[in-house]
Amino acid sequence: MSQKIIVFGEILLRLSPPNHLKVFKSKTFEAHYGGAEANVGASLALMGCDVNVVTALPQNELGASAESEMLSYNMKTNIIRQGERIGIYYFEQGASERPGRVIYDRNNSSFSLLKKGMIDWKSIFKEAKWFHWSGITPALSQDLADVCEEALIIASEMGLTISADLNYRPTLWNYGKKANEIMPNLIQYCDVLLGGIDDSENCLAIQTNEEDSFETVYKNWQDKHPKLKTIVSTLRYDANASSNTIGAVLWNNSKLYRAKEYKISHIIDRIGAGDAFMAGLIYGLIKLPEEPQKTVEYALAASCLKHSIAGDINLASAEDITALMNGSTGGRVIR
Amino acid sequence: MSQKIIVFGEILLRLSPPNHLKVFKSKTFEAHYGGAEANVGASLALMGCDVNVVTALPQNELGASAESEMLSYNMKTNIIRQGERIGIYYFEQGASERPGRVIYDRNNSSFSLLKKGMIDWKSIFKEAKWFHWSGITPALSQDLADVCEEALIIASEMGLTISADLNYRPTLWNYGKKANEIMPNLIQYCDVLLGGIDDSENCLAIQTNEEDSFETVYKNWQDKHPKLKTIVSTLRYDANASSNTIGAVLWNNSKLYRAKEYKISHIIDRIGAGDAFMAGLIYGLIKLPEEPQKTVEYALAASCLKHSIAGDINLASAEDITALMNGSTGGRVIR
Amino acid sequence: MSQKIIVFGEILLRLSPPNHLKVFKSKTFEAHYGGAEANVGASLALMGCDVNVVTALPQNELGASAESEMLSYNMKTNIIRQGERIGIYYFEQGASERPGRVIYDRNNSSFSLLKKGMIDWKSIFKEAKWFHWSGITPALSQDLADVCEEALIIASEMGLTISADLNYRPTLWNYGKKANEIMPNLIQYCDVLLGGIDDSENCLAIQTNEEDSFETVYKNWQDKHPKLKTIVSTLRYDANASSNTIGAVLWNNSKLYRAKEYKISHIIDRIGAGDAFMAGLIYGLIKLPEEPQKTVEYALAASCLKHSIAGDINLASAEDITALMNGSTGGRVIR
Amino acid sequence: MSQKIIVFGEILLRLSPPNHLKVFKSKTFEAHYGGAEANVGASLALMGCDVNVVTALPQNELGASAESEMLSYNMKTNIIRQGERIGIYYFEQGASERPGRVIYDRNNSSFSLLKKGMIDWKSIFKEAKWFHWSGITPALSQDLADVCEEALIIASEMGLTISADLNYRPTLWNYGKKANEIMPNLIQYCDVLLGGIDDSENCLAIQTNEEDSFETVYKNWQDKHPKLKTIVSTLRYDANASSNTIGAVLWNNSKLYRAKEYKISHIIDRIGAGDAFMAGLIYGLIKLPEEPQKTVEYALAASCLKHSIAGDINLASAEDITALMNGSTGGRVIR
Amino acid sequence: MSQKIIVFGEILLRLSPPNHLKVFKSKTFEAHYGGAEANVGASLALMGCDVNVVTALPQNELGASAESEMLSYNMKTNIIRQGERIGIYYFEQGASERPGRVIYDRNNSSFSLLKKGMIDWKSIFKEAKWFHWSGITPALSQDLADVCEEALIIASEMGLTISADLNYRPTLWNYGKKANEIMPNLIQYCDVLLGGIDDSENCLAIQTNEEDSFETVYKNWQDKHPKLKTIVSTLRYDANASSNTIGAVLWNNSKLYRAKEYKISHIIDRIGAGDAFMAGLIYGLIKLPEEPQKTVEYALAASCLKHSIAGDINLASAEDITALMNGSTGGRVIR
Amino acid sequence: MSQKIIVFGEILLRLSPPNHLKVFKSKTFEAHYGGAEANVGASLALMGCDVNVVTALPQNELGASAESEMLSYNMKTNIIRQGERIGIYYFEQGASERPGRVIYDRNNSSFSLLKKGMIDWKSIFKEAKWFHWSGITPALSQDLADVCEEALIIASEMGLTISADLNYRPTLWNYGKKANEIMPNLIQYCDVLLGGIDDSENCLAIQTNEEDSFETVYKNWQDKHPKLKTIVSTLRYDANASSNTIGAVLWNNSKLYRAKEYKISHIIDRIGAGDAFMAGLIYGLIKLPEEPQKTVEYALAASCLKHSIAGDINLASAEDITALMNGSTGGRVIR
Repeated sequence: MSQKIIVFGEILLRLSPPNHLKVFKSKTFEAHYGGAEANVGASLALMGCDVNVVTALPQNELGASAESEMLSYNMKTNIIRQGERIGIYYFEQGASERPGRVIYDRNNSSFSLLKKGMIDWKSIFKEAKWFHWSGITPALSQDLADVCEEALIIASEMGLTISADLNYRPTLWNYGKKANEIMPNLIQYCDVLLGGIDDSENCLAIQTNEEDSFETVYKNWQDKHPKLKTIVSTLRYDANASSNTIGAVLWNNSKLYRAKEYKISHIIDRIGAGDAFMAGLIYGLIKLPEEPQKTVEYALAASCLKHSIAGDINLASAEDITALMNGSTGGRVIR
Repeated sequence: MSQKIIVFGEILLRLSPPNHLKVFKSKTFEAHYGGAEANVGASLALMGCDVNVVTALPQNELGASAESEMLSYNMKTNIIRQGERIGIYYFEQGASERPGRVIYDRNNSSFSLLKKGMIDWKSIFKEAKWFHWSGITPALSQDLADVCEEALIIASEMGLTISADLNYRPTLWNYGKKANEIMPNLIQYCDVLLGGIDDSENCLAIQTNEEDSFETVYKNWQDKHPKLKTIVSTLRYDANASSNTIGAVLWNNSKLYRAKEYKISHIIDRIGAGDAFMAGLIYGLIKLPEEPQKTVEYALAASCLKHSIAGDINLASAEDITALMNGSTGGRVIR
Repeated sequence: MSQKIIVFGEILLRLSPPNHLKVFKSKTFEAHYGGAEANVGASLALMGCDVNVVTALPQNELGASAESEMLSYNMKTNIIRQGERIGIYYFEQGASERPGRVIYDRNNSSFSLLKKGMIDWKSIFKEAKWFHWSGITPALSQDLADVCEEALIIASEMGLTISADLNYRPTLWNYGKKANEIMPNLIQYCDVLLGGIDDSENCLAIQTNEEDSFETVYKNWQDKHPKLKTIVSTLRYDANASSNTIGAVLWNNSKLYRAKEYKISHIIDRIGAGDAFMAGLIYGLIKLPEEPQKTVEYALAASCLKHSIAGDINLASAEDITALMNGSTGGRVIR
Repeated sequence: MSQKIIVFGEILLRLSPPNHLKVFKSKTFEAHYGGAEANVGASLALMGCDVNVVTALPQNELGASAESEMLSYNMKTNIIRQGERIGIYYFEQGASERPGRVIYDRNNSSFSLLKKGMIDWKSIFKEAKWFHWSGITPALSQDLADVCEEALIIASEMGLTISADLNYRPTLWNYGKKANEIMPNLIQYCDVLLGGIDDSENCLAIQTNEEDSFETVYKNWQDKHPKLKTIVSTLRYDANASSNTIGAVLWNNSKLYRAKEYKISHIIDRIGAGDAFMAGLIYGLIKLPEEPQKTVEYALAASCLKHSIAGDINLASAEDITALMNGSTGGRVIR
Repeated sequence: MSQKIIVFGEILLRLSPPNHLKVFKSKTFEAHYGGAEANVGASLALMGCDVNVVTALPQNELGASAESEMLSYNMKTNIIRQGERIGIYYFEQGASERPGRVIYDRNNSSFSLLKKGMIDWKSIFKEAKWFHWSGITPALSQDLADVCEEALIIASEMGLTISADLNYRPTLWNYGKKANEIMPNLIQYCDVLLGGIDDSENCLAIQTNEEDSFETVYKNWQDKHPKLKTIVSTLRYDANASSNTIGAVLWNNSKLYRAKEYKISHIIDRIGAGDAFMAGLIYGLIKLPEEPQKTVEYALAASCLKHSIAGDINLASAEDITALMNGSTGGRVIR
Repeated sequence: MSQKIIVFGEILLRLSPPNHLKVFKSKTFEAHYGGAEANVGASLALMGCDVNVVTALPQNELGASAESEMLSYNMKTNIIRQGERIGIYYFEQGASERPGRVIYDRNNSSFSLLKKGMIDWKSIFKEAKWFHWSGITPALSQDLADVCEEALIIASEMGLTISADLNYRPTLWNYGKKANEIMPNLIQYCDVLLGGIDDSENCLAIQTNEEDSFETVYKNWQDKHPKLKTIVSTLRYDANASSNTIGAVLWNNSKLYRAKEYKISHIIDRIGAGDAFMAGLIYGLIKLPEEPQKTVEYALAASCLKHSIAGDINLASAEDITALMNGSTGGRVIR
């Protein structure tokens, strides 16, 4: 059976001042290329999976750089060349009480011009096993929401497992629709979902009460979207911009599994920590389909390591992640 | 009489790979803030003039950085805070046979949203002596062409001397009008103009013959636009991306003055060399109104030094420029 | 009523090895320009206040850079151009148990040559509301102590509110006078004072007992200097070079207000943390004159954020500071 | 017909001090991954060709980095994972009269451990059209000379066009055989050869007289190796470490074609200039099989541009190279 | 009496990605030169001792750089020039849960070619008081084990005090002998030994029980090697890659002394922390021969400061170390 | 006979903006330590000579860095520890028509506080063969002129060969004496002198006529100072800040020797080019005492290479210099 994984989403140029400097008065920017879904794909490729990223990029040196970066992670690419610009976001690393800060400059990007019919999903999904997307894409335009639906219908028909990250970013939903008007229609196709209790009403239009447990909420989600088999959430406590504690839950077959928590004392870069978790989750679900406890622990260990790695993409190998799961604390130099 | 100089134009974020790297695969970008007109203003401010820059910028850290940079050159600012993004251009330094390369990403910038009536020109021009603009602004939109006209009418009425740089960039004229449909109407208000023979038809709709001299062409320009008193052009010969020879002519009172040429053997950064020339010209016209030969030589020396200075803005002082005019060749360390 | 704030003090070139390197064997230095009083002014200007900095600098590129940096924070400048050198200090960032270290090289600077009569205080204070100085200036020479007195007398006569930071640096008091022989005469003119219990005898020649509370000490200070309306101190606990807990007290109208403390887990740069506090205090006293509790909390939040920002100057905006006061812990990325 | 190109050779880590510093006392090294044959492949891939690189690398992060870099140029990889180290070379950029300098540290690398039978050439060459190798590989060991022969026999049998660069490095031939004892046996399989008159005796054991022209020498080469259809050489004149003039000749069908020369005034990085030429040559021979003059000009233009690009690999696109062939001198900024 | 200290061991080039980047995809490496024994020597030289380092290096720019670095710490050098390469190790800094990682590439180095009879120990030890070596050297080859024995016999005969650090690195013992087959013969010559309970069987072939205390184990060691007068161990608790707690014990004259522990909250670079301890120990044993408690506290304070200093070598001065011993916590900037 | 060389002079911290940036607005400075005389010594030490540098430095981390740097070149040091600051100079690299620029900040340095009697010349000169000083030292103060005289008298008595570089810097002679009132008394002790025709009146109070040849001038110098055996001058033509032609003459035994000129097309750093010449001269005079032509060619080749090396000190080896003398043009990569 095929093992190919398809991820679909926008690849952005991230511009970050070095050394915890602020964007204000910064004289240099470090350039990274990534995006929520491509980050998932790159991490899976580095773990040894066969991954294609589907996106749109401009026909210029920035678009070429973004593709080159994706190739460098051993992903393959299906790129629509169109439009005039790559989307940008400026990311200012926080420190201690100063929060990190994202300034988006992604309107009118090549990806934002995608429309139904432009992507040959049937050919892309041929021999593929898994399709991953996130809630950022339908947030950008009605056209992109339509492209997502188009992809989901075809992927479903072709029997792919489908995963989604709700990735709710309220400031991105600007085209007149709310997330919970669009997302439920798309989530119905999904087998695996990453989303927290807070997202229930915002993204799925399913109300919650304050005292609702993950079990209750996820039960409601599955009742409404019966295709959902696995639902997960990451947790973050005691956080400032330099340290926090992370945890995770996985709900599968009416049971909730909790990963043991990590207290991350020195964050290098938290962008992409959720994507690293998602990649770990997909990897676990494929490799250890009968072991949800190990799967959620692997996913959280992956996310934990991402906090120690600069850039959007988790460079940790499956061996590194497994070692952390198994108790390596980072305190011993590996020789 | 007042000496205040007003410059009007867009301020862009320039992103350049360091050390002559290409944009393709570059992992860092050096950030500069500048624009054709602001560069002129900053250079004049560093020479000791009282300068205000009029522009529009977003209300975010990029906009704040751009303003901070302008203030750091001892300019004052009149900024419309609107829109969501600062315009960007990527600049890849060339080397030897590899040309430098600009990739624009300036559509939908805060500046591009300016419309007539937004800027209080009367208050800005109060106590001002000089107004400088360039052909880049009317290239961007009909609205901006209208804003230019608005400014020019008021500046004329209030008695300011007006200078323009044609700055013809064919790829920017995208809104359905050609430069020579828009520019003649704006040039009629100008006293000082920077433009070459090639621009005659493209920008002024005045045909030239191949053998026409500067005298002939500039005579025609003045016949059509009798307010023009001084017309100048820079010249570039034997150029590759690392070295070239530069010259200049100034036409004034029916006479053509030629500056002695400079063979620039090692170019550090040629962006803004024309703006440095324009600043030198304005400075000369104000300080040495009766000495066109010295003026064009001062302007060319300013432009020459700009080639040796990184960034968009000429950091050379009036003393540095004068020393070069007077024969300092750069071969002796100043102690 | 006018809102202009005047700050007076030396601007130094700070040279710091990058990346926590030691000065010993460092091959590069990062350059910052600042000084205790200018730091206060720059922070106030970034919060939107109208600020002038009064200082002396040499007529060379270093002096020009220092002024340019001050302008870039939207301050205006009144600069005496004299002398041959800008004062320098080398600052080696500490880490964990290794303390930060300052090596001064500021003797014979342009600022150190200031004498009474050189500065036109009457013109500078025209339309000003507030004057800020610190104990560093009278520490440098009898001449500078005299200049302080001169400024304080004129500022008092012209009705400005006057604030001072005792900033007691024993190694700077080298000209034969002790701080407590000079400072009391100057403090009598002040309305607002930043100083701790330890400074009482050293700077004000007012003895304390070990068990004395802030209330007792500050009462004594006010008894001796009845013009003092607001007295504040910052507190630092459990400190190593990378983390500490900070607090603050404000004494006003016979009452002591305590700010809630911050445990700063990862310090980026603690230089200027006191100046950031002072700026927050002045801002609070001007904007919220009836709310001493909010004022001291705002000032401490400002100081807290400074610890996360490289360089001498607090780049946090009033919005950033208010968000921290109101409970933002830095743990959430702002998008 | 298939267009796939196979290149075979070692990929080295290059460590270069930045900014023209010397290796002596340098505190940082810039890392590049490349090798004579991989450089040819990467350049062809960037021009749009379908390229596989065949090599051996260690199973560690350095080996992974080298592969990632190759993938980033849109090449595919066939990598034998073995051994413990990647070969290294230190490269010190020269300047003016100071020559560039290479220090090899490549003994005992993963690649050096290759032996006959380890590489599945039949599968690699399936659907391939072209095979490229160079004289560096058989210089390293008898085993590697045998691997070359093995590959050449199979490639010949499978009908691939074969190109070789003599790449004579006397200091590498250390295992007891001279180049001209090994190379003639390998050259007999080649269709295309890059080599100069000086190489005739050293590499091919064919004696020359001092006055021999390219025509004479290449005629002799073809007489001895009748499969050779195209022989080329690059030329370098008036060279110091920062500037030189380059030329090239191509001998085909008993006729010598000369490319017009380039005077390169400012060299950024000359490593890989020959490989860039080779890539241009292969590209020309494939795309313009009937136009040897254009082919040698394209190849030389490619090599010329490489001198302006940092690293081992020519990042110029086919459009860039064609523009230079057609007279663009680099003196105009492309906007 | 002479105070000269001789250290013997390999000096490696360390290549580390900057800013906590991973080796994978790193584009720059920071270069340091050091080695376990040279690090001890350099630290002693910076404390004011007269130190010679004995080693072998290649006759190239890397060898020259390594020597220059040693000289820069005020050590003298006795260098055998031979071989073709300097040994390398890549060191990837860890962060939080991500462990640091060393990749060795030291086989076939100049040092590895040393054999008995090559070093003129009698002349080197003339006027020397102390000889220091470590277990890394005999791990590399039988020849190097023999060189160690040769040196130890001569040093013993000439009356030097001898110290050793067991420095057990299992991955280095590759030539067919286990550490505990080689080390006991060498340890018999030593007066001072750094080793932990875990090393007892691995290095000394002395079995331990799980509940054995330091007293029991060290008693056994001394029983077997009666020349041993001082035995020490460092301790590390609660460690991740960014923070840990360190302690130390010193056993002397049948008594165990414990240093007070340090909680290091922000590690800059932990490489060489054991060597810094060893240097502090030797310094203490020489300067304070009757004060074992102070000696172990000095040694641990030295090691603590090393964690805050980039590179392999402890740059802290004796004054810095003493200040930390005496309670300076790093929380106060030294002015 | 002893071969030890003693150099005496100030060691300064040089602060240079990177990448040809200007001091104005530069945010980083590269740090080098050097001085006219120490540069000569370091270059001689790198050529294999036994050199001591005599100077004064402060007892702080800057002084320690300066000494460490001197040691790293394999020089030995005799350092008076006194005073509070190291002298500084800012050096802005020029480019093309923009001249390089030095801003001195060296007043009140540790070296400037030296007085007669502080240095134990007799012990320093024991076993020495050569003493080198320059005209910068007596320019700084009468005390330093006296120290020079003191050293010269003792060196003469002890039979050392004495060389001097006039190094005329008019802006440094500020203490009330002109160079030509001080220098003749000091030059009388010298055997070897570097000075040009322009220096004749300024430094030696010997008038020249415009048409005077080197022969005439140097004859006059020797007539007045009969101890002078060798007099040399460097020549610089067609210079801008990035390229120039250099030459040299040597007058010995009534004969003038001219070195063949070098056209240096790309200058990396010209600071210290004269010192590199002086070092080459001393090396030649010692090693080839009977070959003045080779000596002046060696000295000029050394100076030529210095232009290609960053920092104050010539890192070229004797082999590098000899290769250039013998015709290596830098155009071939050394492998």
